[in-house]
Amino acid sequence: MTTIDLNCDLGESFGPWVMGNDEAMIELATSVNIACGLHAGDADIMRKTVDLAKARGVSIGAHPGYRDLHGFGRRPVPGLKASEIENLVAYQIGALQAIATAAGHKVTHVKAHGALSNVACEDDMTAHAIANGIKAVDRNLVFVVLANSRLVQAGEKANLPMVHEVFADRAYEDDGSLVSRRKPGAVLHDARQISERVVRMLQDGEVASVTGKRIKMRIDTVCIHGDTPGAVEIARVLRNALADAAIAVAPFKRAV
Amino acid sequence: MTTIDLNCDLGESFGPWVMGNDEAMIELATSVNIACGLHAGDADIMRKTVDLAKARGVSIGAHPGYRDLHGFGRRPVPGLKASEIENLVAYQIGALQAIATAAGHKVTHVKAHGALSNVACEDDMTAHAIANGIKAVDRNLVFVVLANSRLVQAGEKANLPMVHEVFADRAYEDDGSLVSRRKPGAVLHDARQISERVVRMLQDGEVASVTGKRIKMRIDTVCIHGDTPGAVEIARVLRNALADAAIAVAPFKRAV
Amino acid sequence: MTTIDLNCDLGESFGPWVMGNDEAMIELATSVNIACGLHAGDADIMRKTVDLAKARGVSIGAHPGYRDLHGFGRRPVPGLKASEIENLVAYQIGALQAIATAAGHKVTHVKAHGALSNVACEDDMTAHAIANGIKAVDRNLVFVVLANSRLVQAGEKANLPMVHEVFADRAYEDDGSLVSRRKPGAVLHDARQISERVVRMLQDGEVASVTGKRIKMRIDTVCIHGDTPGAVEIARVLRNALADAAIAVAPFKRAV
Amino acid sequence: MTTIDLNCDLGESFGPWVMGNDEAMIELATSVNIACGLHAGDADIMRKTVDLAKARGVSIGAHPGYRDLHGFGRRPVPGLKASEIENLVAYQIGALQAIATAAGHKVTHVKAHGALSNVACEDDMTAHAIANGIKAVDRNLVFVVLANSRLVQAGEKANLPMVHEVFADRAYEDDGSLVSRRKPGAVLHDARQISERVVRMLQDGEVASVTGKRIKMRIDTVCIHGDTPGAVEIARVLRNALADAAIAVAPFKRAV
Repeated sequence: MTTIDLNCDLGESFGPWVMGNDEAMIELATSVNIACGLHAGDADIMRKTVDLAKARGVSIGAHPGYRDLHGFGRRPVPGLKASEIENLVAYQIGALQAIATAAGHKVTHVKAHGALSNVACEDDMTAHAIANGIKAVDRNLVFVVLANSRLVQAGEKANLPMVHEVFADRAYEDDGSLVSRRKPGAVLHDARQISERVVRMLQDGEVASVTGKRIKMRIDTVCIHGDTPGAVEIARVLRNALADAAIAVAPFKRAV
Repeated sequence: MTTIDLNCDLGESFGPWVMGNDEAMIELATSVNIACGLHAGDADIMRKTVDLAKARGVSIGAHPGYRDLHGFGRRPVPGLKASEIENLVAYQIGALQAIATAAGHKVTHVKAHGALSNVACEDDMTAHAIANGIKAVDRNLVFVVLANSRLVQAGEKANLPMVHEVFADRAYEDDGSLVSRRKPGAVLHDARQISERVVRMLQDGEVASVTGKRIKMRIDTVCIHGDTPGAVEIARVLRNALADAAIAVAPFKRAV
Repeated sequence: MTTIDLNCDLGESFGPWVMGNDEAMIELATSVNIACGLHAGDADIMRKTVDLAKARGVSIGAHPGYRDLHGFGRRPVPGLKASEIENLVAYQIGALQAIATAAGHKVTHVKAHGALSNVACEDDMTAHAIANGIKAVDRNLVFVVLANSRLVQAGEKANLPMVHEVFADRAYEDDGSLVSRRKPGAVLHDARQISERVVRMLQDGEVASVTGKRIKMRIDTVCIHGDTPGAVEIARVLRNALADAAIAVAPFKRAV
Repeated sequence: MTTIDLNCDLGESFGPWVMGNDEAMIELATSVNIACGLHAGDADIMRKTVDLAKARGVSIGAHPGYRDLHGFGRRPVPGLKASEIENLVAYQIGALQAIATAAGHKVTHVKAHGALSNVACEDDMTAHAIANGIKAVDRNLVFVVLANSRLVQAGEKANLPMVHEVFADRAYEDDGSLVSRRKPGAVLHDARQISERVVRMLQDGEVASVTGKRIKMRIDTVCIHGDTPGAVEIARVLRNALADAAIAVAPFKRAV
């Protein structure tokens, strides 16, 4: 029986401002990526999110982004040097590790957020700097990489354990990259369509591009979004579809 | 022969804005307290400061403060709950630990910054929350406490290793507390006067208050400031005076 | 026929984080107080809120708060000098004035936000500094003051036009001050109870305290909250109750 | 006799962090561009800088930048829409206008800061958005534009009064653009060389590029930097050289 991890970005509120529905999403995910205070989240929200994850038996990872609160880490910060990206990543991982230790839980993975991830998928310097920042803190941290992106090579070079990720609700180009959010059809919204697509991806080990091209991919985890309209409903339908297809969900195992 | 630690707050620049003269002060201190990004410092400045300390063989500690960049952590943030202070402290320690690990160095102590320290010296809730925040991250971290303050009891209750601190350039009240910076004479500026005072403190195990009262204190470390005019010169004169008095300087040992 | 203004705090989102339901509340208020970027809001949200107000024919005012984004301006910032509070207030008014000019609308009033208002209601220095900050920018700006608070004297001394405000959903102490939010019963939640209370206040020119004491107050505007659960429903019920009592709603006139 | 304006960026400190030597530079400049709190400066520093300028009879302008405190506005913020840039500019102008009004002074010009200016010099959308943001606040504000850049056309289209600027200490490409700071030789440091260069520029109405090509330019103001090493000395030498060449210095007149 196939087993898949469902990962979700959580802890993206800030001070009194709420984003997403963390309580509902944590019931549906098997691992969560927690914002670390530079593009979203703060020490209290991190702690609350870690507590939620611990209570639910869900794996936690750091979700480092650019230092860009106002832009929610969705805008590239141009001109950073590799060492600056490494420091940025290390800082955020460490902050979450300490909060997790205080809560009696443990950070097991790292996934880059927003623009930091998008830039790294196409820019080797950024991809390697992220991988090096993770490795410099703890070489046993699992690096969650977008399947088929430059993050894969960066993780391999740093010799980090990796899990390969696909997006449940995003369209893919023929080269296996994500369709830019600025293009129409980049994000899928229909719960049934998303669910069928994910089940097929997992059964076939392939992703269908916007032109219908089938792209082989290693798939260890599926990203489900928590901050879009209907997110909770989509995740519920997906969980049911996976169960119907006899695909179990569980936190990813450490992988090479 | 007596040995004393000289601790100094470093890494208090922010982005392109420089504060203090870290390169000069690190030559004169034996342990440094590094700002962790919420009231001063950032991931790059933290890394640079850790690298400096490592190269010079100087111990490093986290210097957590209130989340208050504009006020440099010198203004109390009223109304925080104990759990919020614990999270604040844990977050900052963890961020520095990861940066230190990446640099091949190790965080050995924690000292509260500015208003967080001042409030804690008189407020049990805050003092205990700081101690609990440290303990929750790592019970082997040394807690640097102002001698004679409520931080001492908080550290004892949390069973943290502690070192007791006096200030080289601050006047003391009869009850052993620091004279408020808002009162005249709170801060000493004469290098010779400061040096003679510190030597006498260490030889006698006593601090003289503003009225001449002599107060017994355990003294493990002396705080030297790096951000006041003449700071470097004061520290140099003090180092010479200690040498003349046959008092050695070295990072503090782990103490109970 | 009596006429009353209903004022509401709007524009309290930040970047991608949404607070309140501005589109619904602006249909129910006759004047709005707009956050100016230091405790909530940003230039884009300010513009969007001004555009909404203009389209609906609603008066706009600046809603300056402490520089405290993370705490949403609900925590006092201790230690500010009068000149610093004046600068803080002037800065925020000016920022909104320029945005309003660009949108073809005009800032007509100023109301202090959160902790800045709470502190000023009891602290003369802060109250006068707010009034002086407003006057220094434009002596024709209407100062919205909590009825019976120290803001009234501050506004009188600065010779600013003033409107006196009561809160629809807050309980009052016998001295006419608001019951602290930390006490039970400080905030009323029942739409019908709130509405009846407001109608009676306006008919009698009196507010009933928690002990039943009746306190005479000049009432020019009633504050309705937009960020509490049920806020929109409460405001709708109140509007109906006012109509039933033949009390018209309209933006306040300039008053002395 | 020729008259020239010398403009300088001031008020770039933040909270307790000092940048530049404003007291010295204001003695040497005839107009100053004041940071407005989003990339540097705060309400108190703005007020202090306005007071300094007023006491010295120096013109003041707003110096709006991207919302990027940590990067000091020197990094582009990609992806902003024209309306967002207009709001950003309007917000900052208004904040300074109110502070200036409170201080009894008046904002007469606007000059874009750092990356916002650099991007606008090559990107029509950004250039027009800046001009439109200024115009929307006050069509009488003088727009300080880099000579030969796209800012000129943007200012013309918005029908704003303009003054054309050259940099005293920057090298120029053959097309009249500034040599990127990332290239060697982009910034000149020798006071005598800078002074001779500026005198020649003003006498000839031409700038010599790095290859020796002479480029005709209208020159109404010369930017002198205050935050580089030796800035004060360079400005003093330049003032003397201008006096020797019988070129008077004075705030620019309003120009079309």
